[in-house]
Amino acid sequence: MEITFLGTSGCVPTETRNLSSLIISHLNSPYLFDCGEGTQRQMRIAGINFMKIDHIFLTHLHADHFLGLGGMIQSMDFMERTRELNIYGPRGTQETINTLLSAGTFILDHLTIKIHEITPGPVMESENHAVTCAKTLHTANSIAYLFEEKPHRKFLKQKALDLGVPEGRLFSDLQQGKSVTVKGKTITADQVLDNPIMGRKIIYTGDTKPCNNVINLAQDADVLIHDGTFSNDEKELIEEAAHSTNTQAAEIAVKANVKKLFLTHISQRYPKPEDLQKILDDARKIFPETYIAEDLMKVQVEKHW
Amino acid sequence: MEITFLGTSGCVPTETRNLSSLIISHLNSPYLFDCGEGTQRQMRIAGINFMKIDHIFLTHLHADHFLGLGGMIQSMDFMERTRELNIYGPRGTQETINTLLSAGTFILDHLTIKIHEITPGPVMESENHAVTCAKTLHTANSIAYLFEEKPHRKFLKQKALDLGVPEGRLFSDLQQGKSVTVKGKTITADQVLDNPIMGRKIIYTGDTKPCNNVINLAQDADVLIHDGTFSNDEKELIEEAAHSTNTQAAEIAVKANVKKLFLTHISQRYPKPEDLQKILDDARKIFPETYIAEDLMKVQVEKHW
Repeated sequence: MEITFLGTSGCVPTETRNLSSLIISHLNSPYLFDCGEGTQRQMRIAGINFMKIDHIFLTHLHADHFLGLGGMIQSMDFMERTRELNIYGPRGTQETINTLLSAGTFILDHLTIKIHEITPGPVMESENHAVTCAKTLHTANSIAYLFEEKPHRKFLKQKALDLGVPEGRLFSDLQQGKSVTVKGKTITADQVLDNPIMGRKIIYTGDTKPCNNVINLAQDADVLIHDGTFSNDEKELIEEAAHSTNTQAAEIAVKANVKKLFLTHISQRYPKPEDLQKILDDARKIFPETYIAEDLMKVQVEKHW
Repeated sequence: MEITFLGTSGCVPTETRNLSSLIISHLNSPYLFDCGEGTQRQMRIAGINFMKIDHIFLTHLHADHFLGLGGMIQSMDFMERTRELNIYGPRGTQETINTLLSAGTFILDHLTIKIHEITPGPVMESENHAVTCAKTLHTANSIAYLFEEKPHRKFLKQKALDLGVPEGRLFSDLQQGKSVTVKGKTITADQVLDNPIMGRKIIYTGDTKPCNNVINLAQDADVLIHDGTFSNDEKELIEEAAHSTNTQAAEIAVKANVKKLFLTHISQRYPKPEDLQKILDDARKIFPETYIAEDLMKVQVEKHW
């Protein structure tokens, strides 16, 4: 499981930071979270094939988080993609995408887009992972996403052999959670699978003030990617902006007991390395495993088993 | 007068080329031509302050030429710009901009935008330059732009002195084209100004098939920036695409008697340096002063006087 930061700037792009977007890659599939202007090009630079994306998750409907969808969808269509593209976002997402795609003379020729306007709770599930969301404190219906690998139960081979199960197809059935019958005796998966080990968890807040829902959603996560728009030296700025400071994000990381914190959505106010170093140092006094996300940075999330 | 290429890719951005956009800088003012997705960031990388742009010219309403307006306008507004922004484009420009800005939850707080839906002929004029446009062959109302410095007439100081004009304010009046009266005698500007020297001319075609209007508009220009989407080796591609090849653009440059030709809107089909070299070599066989535009390339256009 790998995170690629595609854009880490807040509101306005800078020389070194594009607008909000990141990819979580899992089992060769890229999942896109937010899609600020310029995201399709960032993917090309990062070597990620945007034609492989089937699921896009929007945290809220401010333009610096979705404007890149217009170009990317048109490129997919231009390159004659027909496979369905799923876009998840809060109420208003359907209208926003419709509006964006109706600007100018564009008509979709190939691509089918399915919009999912979601509410807090489960968002999607596959065989190997699940995505859940929770309400944040930024806009009326802004959301944070949890991308979670499903728990794993190790197969206890010796125990299965001791119970008389022969190696082969029955092993595979048991590993998949099915029961099997050997010489008239039923053996359940529970008997030969170890206690479940929690899968990897990545949480991405989008823009938000410090928020209890994030603490709950992020509990024990491997990686928390949190709004870190402002420095704690300029705390007065966040009153009206509904963003977080570096130290507020670090406090959330402590409360949620996560392993690592990445600050993103960095304001253009901090172009100087020394300002960023102070932002990092101040956050690390509270939560030592803090990092500042940079464009095109890749983060490996290690397996739990 | 300087050209900065901000985006030189056709339709889809690549690792090295952003979508269509270029700046002509003249007397400290930047004039923006087309504004593909990611243009505001390209300007930051190029060190051009987008807050200084007062005039934007769109060649047509395909998204790869205008999608960047949404983000740039929002950034200008976010940074509390109030000075009027003029956007020129074909019929449909007003509706396109309205649609683009109505996606999501955005509301303009500060900026005033004036849209000018233009037809072939004069577009705008200032004290020092004029912009003219002509119909091209790409969409129903696609246009090419000519950016032209006004002609210059050298002031013949000795002739003015010989006619009895004293140095000082009257010299300045004559230089500005006014008549002056010295000891009851009227002296006109025509008497003391040399024959006009043509100002610098830059023409940008946007997307187009080879087109007579471009030949006429570009006559004797310093720089012709022409659609060069395809290589002449793939001539069959242009039949349906309404673009030009490298050699077609070079033929236009010959017919228009321009000084330099820059090919732009390069297809993603040519990522390899050797392919680009062949595109360049083939065009130079027809028009030796051909160049391929690259992102962030700056071109100085030398003074005529």
